[in-house]
Amino acid sequence: MITQRYRDMLKERSVIRQLSEWSTARGAEIGYDNVFDFSLGNPSVPCPPHFTAVCQRLLQNPDTVALHGYSPSATLPQVRAAVAASLQKRFGLPYTAQHIFMTCGAAGALAHALRCVGTPGQEVLTVAPFFPEYGPYAEGAGLTLKVVPPCTADFQIDFAALEALLTENTAAVLINSPNNPSGAVYSEQTLRRLAALLAAAGERHGHHIFLISDEPYREITYSGPVPYPARYYADTITCYSFSKSLSIPGERIGYLAANPACEAAGDIVAICTQISRGTGHNCPASLLQLAVAECLEDTSDLGVYAANMALLYDELKGLGFNVVRPGGTFYIFPQALEPDSIAFCEKAKKYDLALVPGDSFGCPGWFRMAYCIPTEKLRRSFPALERFVRGEYGIARV
Amino acid sequence: MITQRYRDMLKERSVIRQLSEWSTARGAEIGYDNVFDFSLGNPSVPCPPHFTAVCQRLLQNPDTVALHGYSPSATLPQVRAAVAASLQKRFGLPYTAQHIFMTCGAAGALAHALRCVGTPGQEVLTVAPFFPEYGPYAEGAGLTLKVVPPCTADFQIDFAALEALLTENTAAVLINSPNNPSGAVYSEQTLRRLAALLAAAGERHGHHIFLISDEPYREITYSGPVPYPARYYADTITCYSFSKSLSIPGERIGYLAANPACEAAGDIVAICTQISRGTGHNCPASLLQLAVAECLEDTSDLGVYAANMALLYDELKGLGFNVVRPGGTFYIFPQALEPDSIAFCEKAKKYDLALVPGDSFGCPGWFRMAYCIPTEKLRRSFPALERFVRGEYGIARV
Repeated sequence: MITQRYRDMLKERSVIRQLSEWSTARGAEIGYDNVFDFSLGNPSVPCPPHFTAVCQRLLQNPDTVALHGYSPSATLPQVRAAVAASLQKRFGLPYTAQHIFMTCGAAGALAHALRCVGTPGQEVLTVAPFFPEYGPYAEGAGLTLKVVPPCTADFQIDFAALEALLTENTAAVLINSPNNPSGAVYSEQTLRRLAALLAAAGERHGHHIFLISDEPYREITYSGPVPYPARYYADTITCYSFSKSLSIPGERIGYLAANPACEAAGDIVAICTQISRGTGHNCPASLLQLAVAECLEDTSDLGVYAANMALLYDELKGLGFNVVRPGGTFYIFPQALEPDSIAFCEKAKKYDLALVPGDSFGCPGWFRMAYCIPTEKLRRSFPALERFVRGEYGIARV
Repeated sequence: MITQRYRDMLKERSVIRQLSEWSTARGAEIGYDNVFDFSLGNPSVPCPPHFTAVCQRLLQNPDTVALHGYSPSATLPQVRAAVAASLQKRFGLPYTAQHIFMTCGAAGALAHALRCVGTPGQEVLTVAPFFPEYGPYAEGAGLTLKVVPPCTADFQIDFAALEALLTENTAAVLINSPNNPSGAVYSEQTLRRLAALLAAAGERHGHHIFLISDEPYREITYSGPVPYPARYYADTITCYSFSKSLSIPGERIGYLAANPACEAAGDIVAICTQISRGTGHNCPASLLQLAVAECLEDTSDLGVYAANMALLYDELKGLGFNVVRPGGTFYIFPQALEPDSIAFCEKAKKYDLALVPGDSFGCPGWFRMAYCIPTEKLRRSFPALERFVRGEYGIARV
């Protein structure tokens, strides 16, 4: 019979989903162009023409049996080698093919990483604000997600709070830099301190504590290369997706990279192949594995996100918002103008603004705006923002 | 730290994998063309040119943001509608888009179906001989796989044995027709009897018992359309893959179809979207969803499998093997010439024959041959087969 557990989950309504439905419905009334939908983190720039050209060329291979054939369960060896070489070149760690496992996006990578390092019943820590799907990811692996409260001054890490949650039952710490929703990039200093803390805790508890680094926004950065977490801590598993860098989120392609210096580094991919057997993952599409292997140093034209960020940050500051300037991603995360950010975002709808309350990200009182929208539309949203804060909170431009 | 459970799994060596490695090594010595590798179930015929043309055309869409964008979590609605219409036309059940969930191959479909109908701790029954990955699939969903012993006379179902295993703790019965490894197609009579038995058991135990029908070989049939299990039993979830029909196993694309008359039929796709959140599945690649939607009535040229089956069946009969004529798939499953089929297959290697012992499929004493190889090579294997049975068992051609 139908399992009650998942039936119960149907009653939980995703706030982002509801907002998106509201935007669609409101768009049907007044034209979608007039709804300022900041709810969805969908890339809005085209994929690189090179990606399309590579797919087209691959499809000209007359040996379709080879082209569309099964991947080995560890995924395609030449693709793993190409990813390893690129990571080695960029970040200076001695990755080889044996440390790389191609996955269906970062979600697939995280599903494997969590099962790899956590035994059901253990805990995984993450830092607020955090991507809400970390909850189901952890639960699916039989782990309990514990949340470190946010450090709202700069959205780095509150280390005292993290330390208080680290116990002998902690399997891993899951971070996301550049961060969805805050846009924060963890500094070298943050990563060094985190590494020292995890190493000490591992020593104290007599087992390795893994760092799982979720990096789908790595290439969307506004101040040079993002510090690469695996460089600071040996027991790091990096989870990557090409969704944002190549604007191909629907193609579900990414990878897991085990730091060559981590515990059981040489076995992690083999362990992932065992995990896949139980989850129905079984490799991403061969065509897409082959395609991204030729586009590892490509990105879409990500400049629009930088332009939008600068415009929106200035506008929010001008309206008096308390907001940290994002270091990357296409999100910004200001403080709401009342403590109840759900009420705040509800009121915004009256001005045709779709804003996501921070409650969904473990950070009530704040809200997320995804500015991966056309710059022209972003500009048009500013008068609506201004009407909103003046109309509801009596705040005039500073 | 690295999970012991999956580490332990690394010690289990897959028999098929070992055979494949042996074939590769032996091929390096004598030329792969001279190794008669019947171990791997990989399609050997090209994909339909129409599939390639559709992919090429889709990639010409200048709106790459739409083409490569996120699927809704229930997968692409127009693709689901197309699959529903095709199934409705072919099998006469009133499927609509709401009953269809696109998956990463049949493995993805089975992972969802098992979690959907089974609560951890329950049991799922399957019928020997069976695809060995059903073990990890069930275990991954927290279920125990119980195996109904084989009915070696015709590889239909031993109903007395099935009935003996059905308890109030049975969540589902998992079948595979046409069957890997036996090639058997379940007859209408078998499916009617199975339906009656499951309905009675469900009544007795006060809950629905689901039939999960794994159908990747549905289109490879040697005597007209395969009876469609969902037509005989309302509580059926059909799991399909395009891997074999379109010869694209590496592209990982298939679907789950809930019989519109099953328990909670209208909720099953929504439940699948919840299941995906915990497994990292998150929709198959958009490009491939869109491509197969235009190729639902296409198949590769599957005639070579029929030709090979007829040749091989006659040869095995001629050598005196006890063998059931396959109704579909590209497998045949004869009885070994000694009770120990592992020893039998080991001896076959001396004649450069890679045969898979039935032990892997819950059916010791028998062995599987995958005849998805070029017909020319199949013919060349016959002298080796003859030398093998004469040399090891003193059996001459009848």
